[in-house]
Amino acid sequence: MTSPTAARLARLRERMQSAAVDALVVSARNNIRYLSGFSGSSGALLVTPHEVLLFSDFRYRIQAAEQAPDFEFVEVQRHLMKAVGERARADGARALGYDPANLTCEGRDELSAGAGDGDLRPCAGLVEELRALKSADEVEQIRAAAALADSALERLIPMLRPGATERSLAVEAEFAMRRMGADAAAFDVIVASGPRAALPHAEPTDRELEVGDVVVIDIGAKRHGYCSDMTRTFVVGRASQQMREVYSIVYRAQAAGVAALAPGVACADVDAAARAIIADAGYGEAFGHGLGHGVGLDVHEAPRLGREEETKLAVGHVVTVEPGVYLAGVGGVRLENLLVVREGGPETLTSSPLPAELPIV
Amino acid sequence: MTSPTAARLARLRERMQSAAVDALVVSARNNIRYLSGFSGSSGALLVTPHEVLLFSDFRYRIQAAEQAPDFEFVEVQRHLMKAVGERARADGARALGYDPANLTCEGRDELSAGAGDGDLRPCAGLVEELRALKSADEVEQIRAAAALADSALERLIPMLRPGATERSLAVEAEFAMRRMGADAAAFDVIVASGPRAALPHAEPTDRELEVGDVVVIDIGAKRHGYCSDMTRTFVVGRASQQMREVYSIVYRAQAAGVAALAPGVACADVDAAARAIIADAGYGEAFGHGLGHGVGLDVHEAPRLGREEETKLAVGHVVTVEPGVYLAGVGGVRLENLLVVREGGPETLTSSPLPAELPIV
Repeated sequence: MTSPTAARLARLRERMQSAAVDALVVSARNNIRYLSGFSGSSGALLVTPHEVLLFSDFRYRIQAAEQAPDFEFVEVQRHLMKAVGERARADGARALGYDPANLTCEGRDELSAGAGDGDLRPCAGLVEELRALKSADEVEQIRAAAALADSALERLIPMLRPGATERSLAVEAEFAMRRMGADAAAFDVIVASGPRAALPHAEPTDRELEVGDVVVIDIGAKRHGYCSDMTRTFVVGRASQQMREVYSIVYRAQAAGVAALAPGVACADVDAAARAIIADAGYGEAFGHGLGHGVGLDVHEAPRLGREEETKLAVGHVVTVEPGVYLAGVGGVRLENLLVVREGGPETLTSSPLPAELPIV
Repeated sequence: MTSPTAARLARLRERMQSAAVDALVVSARNNIRYLSGFSGSSGALLVTPHEVLLFSDFRYRIQAAEQAPDFEFVEVQRHLMKAVGERARADGARALGYDPANLTCEGRDELSAGAGDGDLRPCAGLVEELRALKSADEVEQIRAAAALADSALERLIPMLRPGATERSLAVEAEFAMRRMGADAAAFDVIVASGPRAALPHAEPTDRELEVGDVVVIDIGAKRHGYCSDMTRTFVVGRASQQMREVYSIVYRAQAAGVAALAPGVACADVDAAARAIIADAGYGEAFGHGLGHGVGLDVHEAPRLGREEETKLAVGHVVTVEPGVYLAGVGGVRLENLLVVREGGPETLTSSPLPAELPIV
């Protein structure tokens, strides 16, 4: 077995040993992809000290052979987890690990039925912790995905005119990324205008932009499986004094969060550095979400930059820093860059300009 | 509370009584949407005989008020299921139902920690069984989604020329649906050409169409949350004798499956009616998936038309009929219509032509 897969499996097996399991069921789609290359929508891996099996169904027989040629393919028609358990038992697994955050109760029951008297042990985050630390190649994949979103945003800005609908703008932004080679948008593009900018996860509507609207655009591309994520806020025509102030606060909070990104710093402390600026300005209640999150094969993955996250940052973590202030009925501002943690300070993977003052379009 | 939510909750409460639970946790996103109208990516409902609570986080506070104004909103920062369990306990729930197919092991552990000595009971499919039977309004939503896919396919056919890539065709088809008002594609559009047509769930690649290629196009739109699904197969320029034969077999299998769709018929018998034609023609091994599936808020939902599905069809079931023959290294054919089961025979919701002979483009 060549290339990243073998090294990833070797690291996973070390972690399995520490977790005292001699076999591990991998059930999350992107964990399977990370370890095997297989990107199908249904499947599981069984990792033992000496082999890895890929379980999926008829639909993916050929794809599995293409994407994971060195893995033994086990074709299962139904009750996939039961088949995994049966194989683990047949292979003599004594302690069988599974991921409680990525296995349904039904899946665990099937696994248990198949494994018989095997000892099932919850093992959370074994693969996620590997995935959190990006290789140089992975950083380049994410950088390339970020560049697609940068280009799409650049094309979108001239379209932010009165009369344009949120929905049409979101669709055009996504198409721009796809035409340039994105697999897909990394998530549904958010274009939230006027009072709708107060919804952190707004779905684009047929609302037409009006003069005076703030417009929050949250956009990311997926390319070769890897995601990007960024947010910019604009205003159409003219800005209210309040929105200019709020923008400036969020801008300073974003910079403070970025400045705090360093190996060894607790994620909660990065969140706190940005949050203090918003709270000191009197908008603490209006920033109700965490400061950021890891990005990789999933657009939200480890580590989380949140108030209670004691995880320490490390070189190779790729995270967003995205403070926001949301004022119901009025509007909102969010600013988000994507960065990789480095020894000498974070490197920004987002290339779109981030002006210090609310940009008027 | 007004339509259709109130009626759906009333039917659910009857089912809860039959299942001997006095409270139910609803955790699947589209089950939440069906019952409440709330479409956020994270949340849960707690349904008791006299109230319904919607649990989600800060990001969805405003959206929840817009989409589910009659539901009590409970804002939770983390450990959503623990909060649900605590509320169920505080409300005196004795038997708390949950859906084992749509709750992770971790979620169940949290729910259990919150509910304390409450009695947790697995209740599979309570909401899914309601959803399987579509109202007249829901059928119209699905019909409208199907019409978007029909229009997109019509625009795509002239683009099926040598040199066009699978990826560019898939992107154009999706954009056409989105521009016409689709929320999104119901699933990643499949454009599988030449030998790649042998992959039932092929991901579009940069492969260019060549003269002699069969091209399988599997496309669906999502509109107002409701999905559609259809598949057509074409050939570029000229067809091999084998592919013409295979097409004809699949065409007859599709017609036989449709002819078998009637209230009271077991899903397995519909599958068998189509499968017999393919098996009799000597291609039984090359049709490795089920004949079809229900379509609604999810593109794959109850009922399943599969070999072991004893569920009886009923008026209001909306299902696909999609036999296929897949020949590794050679190509494949799949033909799929979307239909609603009616007393007097099924009604087809797909309007795209379905020629009896392999169409040459």
